[in-house]
Amino acid sequence: MYTAQELYTRYEARFSKNNFRESPNGLYNPVNHIMSMKGKRIRPLLLLLACDMFGGDTDRALNPAFAVEVFHNFTLVHDDIMDKADLRRGYPTVHQKFGMNAGILAGDVMLAYAYKYLTDIPVHFIPKVMSVFTETAIQIFEGQQMDMDFETRSDVALEEYLKMIEYKTSVLLACSLQIGAVLGNAGEQEQSAIHHFGLNLGLSFQIKDDLLDAFGEGEKVGKKIGGDILMNKKTYLYISTFHLANEEQKATLNRLMNESDELLKITGVKQLMTDTGAYNATIKKADELYERSLASLYKISLPAEKKQALIELAEKINQRDY
Amino acid sequence: MYTAQELYTRYEARFSKNNFRESPNGLYNPVNHIMSMKGKRIRPLLLLLACDMFGGDTDRALNPAFAVEVFHNFTLVHDDIMDKADLRRGYPTVHQKFGMNAGILAGDVMLAYAYKYLTDIPVHFIPKVMSVFTETAIQIFEGQQMDMDFETRSDVALEEYLKMIEYKTSVLLACSLQIGAVLGNAGEQEQSAIHHFGLNLGLSFQIKDDLLDAFGEGEKVGKKIGGDILMNKKTYLYISTFHLANEEQKATLNRLMNESDELLKITGVKQLMTDTGAYNATIKKADELYERSLASLYKISLPAEKKQALIELAEKINQRDY
Repeated sequence: MYTAQELYTRYEARFSKNNFRESPNGLYNPVNHIMSMKGKRIRPLLLLLACDMFGGDTDRALNPAFAVEVFHNFTLVHDDIMDKADLRRGYPTVHQKFGMNAGILAGDVMLAYAYKYLTDIPVHFIPKVMSVFTETAIQIFEGQQMDMDFETRSDVALEEYLKMIEYKTSVLLACSLQIGAVLGNAGEQEQSAIHHFGLNLGLSFQIKDDLLDAFGEGEKVGKKIGGDILMNKKTYLYISTFHLANEEQKATLNRLMNESDELLKITGVKQLMTDTGAYNATIKKADELYERSLASLYKISLPAEKKQALIELAEKINQRDY
Repeated sequence: MYTAQELYTRYEARFSKNNFRESPNGLYNPVNHIMSMKGKRIRPLLLLLACDMFGGDTDRALNPAFAVEVFHNFTLVHDDIMDKADLRRGYPTVHQKFGMNAGILAGDVMLAYAYKYLTDIPVHFIPKVMSVFTETAIQIFEGQQMDMDFETRSDVALEEYLKMIEYKTSVLLACSLQIGAVLGNAGEQEQSAIHHFGLNLGLSFQIKDDLLDAFGEGEKVGKKIGGDILMNKKTYLYISTFHLANEEQKATLNRLMNESDELLKITGVKQLMTDTGAYNATIKKADELYERSLASLYKISLPAEKKQALIELAEKINQRDY
């Protein structure tokens, strides 16, 4: 078995260059631009660790590991166009640097390359890996649409929010883990267990991400604190605040939504988030989901030491210590 | 064996509705908008006819036939955004009707659905069908990039132009035919022959399309005559004109490129196209490619009557009588 660090090193060595064709430049320079912004490789690592845990050949899992990373980066390129984002990980976004058409087309070809690498595996794995991946891709696009729809709605329910982040964020973690399990010859039940591990890990992560956006320390979070509050974004934390508020607090919240003084708005909304108990309820929910994710992993019939590397990565993701 | 009409009818009956999920509406309404503009179903028909010719089960080929149509429509949605096109088959384009973000995301999910339908076939066909399709998709994006690159270049060679239209247009016809052949259990050599049939048929078609843009009858072509000339588009016809022109004709051509009077420009350039012999050379090239496409089909070791339906469709495509 490998440590996460060893798998990370092998992954980086394999995919440090020449993963796409060279020409036409107008197509592949934008692709290489986004792919050269080094991410944390969470999805490839989850895939490789899951494969290794079930005793699979991690060499054979490297291409699909790259595929989920390429797919993830494709979604970032198109999402950045839709969100009109100028910066990503401190660099200009693809459409900002190369133009919108380049961003659209680079994303498209990345999706095709994701499928190319995904299926560069022993043929008997291809049908199952394909169906898991394609179902996931469809859910991710549905999640992105829900997210855009929620911007103009004020009545988003907690269940709807959870479904949105499940689709937009969690399913790709779950898919990466499940593909790793498939390549490790895991049975349907084990695949399902590790899929649920990823789903709940992702939900917990995203809910904590929303918490940090309001209550984190600016430096550690790496972005402006209170951004979601200023945009009246309907996060789990925000929706909980609205549901737990009494009439007076609801009135204050509604007033603050239109407050133009940024500091007043952020301070006021955060006060309501704690006063209503939404802050604590949100932490509790995230912790529950994290515990539930680990429970899915525990119930897989493998010796504890086989699961250790994956548990450690989950813990790092949960603690944002990666 | 089936006639093209019978296969068309079965295809339409199977895919007349409910091919995508219903929710979220913001995602699937744009998808249904483009898919409801009835096309000629050339790619699905090529796939089904090829499958039938090799004795395959056309029932099993219906899903991949739909997949190539969904993929083709996805490229139209994204190309229309890149080309800033407002109308498609007389209807508002997706981004025009639903906004750019909807166009980008609808295209993305259509690509995922194309893979979903493509692989809804007996599992032993999946690996080969996947690799043919994904390679084709990558080439199509490369072709679209070349096409955009050519807009700002004046030195496009004939070979480059042919490569561009091969990638942008022909490979999907060739891919559709080859997938049909795979599903008909054709061997590698037969797959290659039918692939080349599609490649050259597509090249011939596109070169004739360029000819019609300049010399066709407005009503029959269904678009404004001379549009390519007005945009100084580097078609096979245009590049040939430039290459065959003497110094005086070259000077005239260069002057006409900046002519603001539309009628003068179109009339003048068309005159040069015939005077230089480019018009005749272009017709000759298209005819040669069409003959070469049929030759690939003839060399497949099957009784002539098996090939008849496919030859008839090729003839219709060539005559634009479909």
